[in-house]
Amino acid sequence: MILLFTDYGWQGAYAGQLKAAIYNRSKSALVIDLQHDAPIFDPRASAYLLASLIDFLPHEALVLAIVDPGVGNAARRPLVMKADGRWYVGPDNGLFNVIAKQAERVEFWRIDWQPAGLKKTFHGRDLFAPVAAMLDLGERPELSSLAAEKIGFADWPVELAEVIYIDNFGNAITGLKGSSVSTDMRIHMGEREVCFAETFSAVGEGEGFWHINANGLVEIAVNQGTAALAYNLKIGDPVYMYQSEV
Amino acid sequence: MILLFTDYGWQGAYAGQLKAAIYNRSKSALVIDLQHDAPIFDPRASAYLLASLIDFLPHEALVLAIVDPGVGNAARRPLVMKADGRWYVGPDNGLFNVIAKQAERVEFWRIDWQPAGLKKTFHGRDLFAPVAAMLDLGERPELSSLAAEKIGFADWPVELAEVIYIDNFGNAITGLKGSSVSTDMRIHMGEREVCFAETFSAVGEGEGFWHINANGLVEIAVNQGTAALAYNLKIGDPVYMYQSEV
Amino acid sequence: MILLFTDYGWQGAYAGQLKAAIYNRSKSALVIDLQHDAPIFDPRASAYLLASLIDFLPHEALVLAIVDPGVGNAARRPLVMKADGRWYVGPDNGLFNVIAKQAERVEFWRIDWQPAGLKKTFHGRDLFAPVAAMLDLGERPELSSLAAEKIGFADWPVELAEVIYIDNFGNAITGLKGSSVSTDMRIHMGEREVCFAETFSAVGEGEGFWHINANGLVEIAVNQGTAALAYNLKIGDPVYMYQSEV
Repeated sequence: MILLFTDYGWQGAYAGQLKAAIYNRSKSALVIDLQHDAPIFDPRASAYLLASLIDFLPHEALVLAIVDPGVGNAARRPLVMKADGRWYVGPDNGLFNVIAKQAERVEFWRIDWQPAGLKKTFHGRDLFAPVAAMLDLGERPELSSLAAEKIGFADWPVELAEVIYIDNFGNAITGLKGSSVSTDMRIHMGEREVCFAETFSAVGEGEGFWHINANGLVEIAVNQGTAALAYNLKIGDPVYMYQSEV
Repeated sequence: MILLFTDYGWQGAYAGQLKAAIYNRSKSALVIDLQHDAPIFDPRASAYLLASLIDFLPHEALVLAIVDPGVGNAARRPLVMKADGRWYVGPDNGLFNVIAKQAERVEFWRIDWQPAGLKKTFHGRDLFAPVAAMLDLGERPELSSLAAEKIGFADWPVELAEVIYIDNFGNAITGLKGSSVSTDMRIHMGEREVCFAETFSAVGEGEGFWHINANGLVEIAVNQGTAALAYNLKIGDPVYMYQSEV
Repeated sequence: MILLFTDYGWQGAYAGQLKAAIYNRSKSALVIDLQHDAPIFDPRASAYLLASLIDFLPHEALVLAIVDPGVGNAARRPLVMKADGRWYVGPDNGLFNVIAKQAERVEFWRIDWQPAGLKKTFHGRDLFAPVAAMLDLGERPELSSLAAEKIGFADWPVELAEVIYIDNFGNAITGLKGSSVSTDMRIHMGEREVCFAETFSAVGEGEGFWHINANGLVEIAVNQGTAALAYNLKIGDPVYMYQSEV
C-alpha cells in the first residue's frame, strides 16, 4: 500500500502521472491519495503535518511524500527512510525529520537508482514513484546507507509553535501537540484569545476555541465558522499559548 | 464496493484518512470517491443531492456518507440504513431521509460498535469507516435496530423547491424532480425567468434555460456560461416554477 | 487500466459517477484519475495537453478523455481511436487529433453501441464509461469504422504557439515542443521577456524563465513564484519565441 502526500494540488496531471508511474511498475499496487495540498514549497510545515498523520495509517503502508523537492539543487538528495518498520520515500529537505526524531528506530538511504533518461523537473514521476513501487513490491532499488547526522535540517524540534496548515473549513492546525499542553491554557492572537473546548458543538455558533484535533495537534477553530478569517491566520504565523490566570 | 459522499472537500487529509481507515480493515476494498464537496454543514441539501445519485451506482455499492456529523451532539447517533438492499453508513442528521422515503423497504440501526480510544472529532475515520469496511466485507459490527419513527428529520419532503448545489460549471441544481414538472413551466428568479430546453446546445451561447439533469433533477443552466453568476443563485435559494401562460 | 482526462473538475459527482459507471461494468478495472481540470470547454488546448502526457502512461492504459463533449450536437459523434496500440474513447471534437497526427498507426470508429435509456446530458457516465470498460475488458462494443479524413478538426497543427494550461503553481504551459526550439530563444510577453533556464533553482527567487517541462513542452515559470500572475497569462494567449540577438 502506497500513500501519497504532496504539494502538487489536485489540479493538473501531477498527482495522476505519479500514480500512473507507480502502476507502470506495479499493477497490483494499492495507491491512496492521503493529501495533495501539503503546505506548498514548505517542507518544514509539511514535516509536522505529515508526522501527525502516520499513527492512523495501515501498518504496512509506505509513504511517498513530495513537497518542494528542489529539483536541480544538489544538496537535496533523493532519500529513503525506514522508521519503526515503515518505508518513506521523498526528498532530503527535512520532510521526514519530525517522524525520524520521534521514531525508536530509523535508517536512511540515498537513492542511487536512476531511470534511463531522468528528467530534471519531475523526480516524483520518474524517480520517487518507481522507487516507491519497487520497495512496495519487496524489491530493492540501488540505495546507499546514509548516517543520520548527514540528513538535512536535523535540528528541527519535535513541536512547532506555528500555524502549519489551514484546512478546508478554515481551521488553523498548529505544530503543537495536544499531549504537551494543558486544557486551561489560552491561545492569544493579537488582541483576541481563545480557550479550550472539547468539541465544536461545546461552544456557540460563531464562537472561537482551540481543541486537540483528531491527529493530536492543537487546532484553532470556530464552530460553524472560519477561524483563519476570524483571526487572520496563515501558515507560519506564531502561536502563543499561555496559562490562563484564574 | 464503498462509495464516499462527504463535505470534507479534497483539501487536507480528511478524505485520505477515511480511505486509509477503510483499507486498514479491508485491503480488498474497492473505494470510489463519489463526491467530497457535498453542501457543507448542510445535511438537508445533501440529502436531496445524494438521493439523486443512487440510481446510477453499482447494485452492490455501499454508501458511506458524512456531512456535518455534529460530533459531540448526543442527538446525532451514528446510523446504518439498509434501503432496497443497499447499505448506507453515516450520521443520523437527515442525510439518508430522502432515500428512505423513496425506498420500498428500509431498515435502520444505531451503531453500537466503538473502536478502542475513539476520538471525538473524527468519527468518519474512527467509527464510520471501519463500520463501512466491516459491512462491505460481510461482517456485522454491533448494531441495535432502530424504529423508523425514531430517525431524525423524518418530515422532510421527497422534493425540495430550492437550489441544493452549484456545480463546477455554475449550474444550479434544485431538489425538484424532472418527473414532477412539465416542460412548459418556467422558473422565475426575481425579474428574470428561464424556459425549458432539452440540452445545452439547444439554446444560444450565453442563454439561460432549465433542463432535467442526468440525475433526474431540475437544473438551471446557461449554455457556455455560469447560471449561478448570471442569476445570483446559491444553495438554499427558493425555486419558483410556474406554468407558462400561452 | 483506464486513465481519466476530463474537464469535469473535482467538484460535484461527475468524476465519481464516471468511475462508478466503469466499475459497474468491470469490478476488476484499475481506474486512475489522470487530470480532471483539462481546459474547460476547450478541446483544442486540451488536445495539446493530452498529447504531451501519453508517453508517460503504462503501455496498456486506455485513455477515457472527455472535454466539452457538446452533447446534443449531432456533429460531435462519440469516438473510439486506436493509436500506436493504445485505445482512446471520447468525443469527436478534436481532442485526439494531436495524438493522431503524431501516431504511426491510427484507426477510428464511431460508437454505435447505446445503453438502454441514454440520457442526453451525461454521455460520460452513460456512453463513454461503459464503452471504455468494455474495451478494457477486451470486449468489443458495436463500432463502425471511420475514415481518418472524416474526423473533425483534422487541420490542427502538431504544435500550438499558445498558452494551453495554467497549472496549480501558476506555470504557463504552451503547446510548443521543447524539441522544436533552441535554448537561446526568448519568449516575449508585451514589454517583458524570459530566457531559457534548465531548472527552477538555476534562476533567482522570483525570477522568470522558460524551460522544457517534464512532458516535453515549453513552459513559462517563475522560481518560487507565479508566472501567470507575473506575466498576466491565460489559456489561449499567443506565445512569441524569438532567437536572441547576440
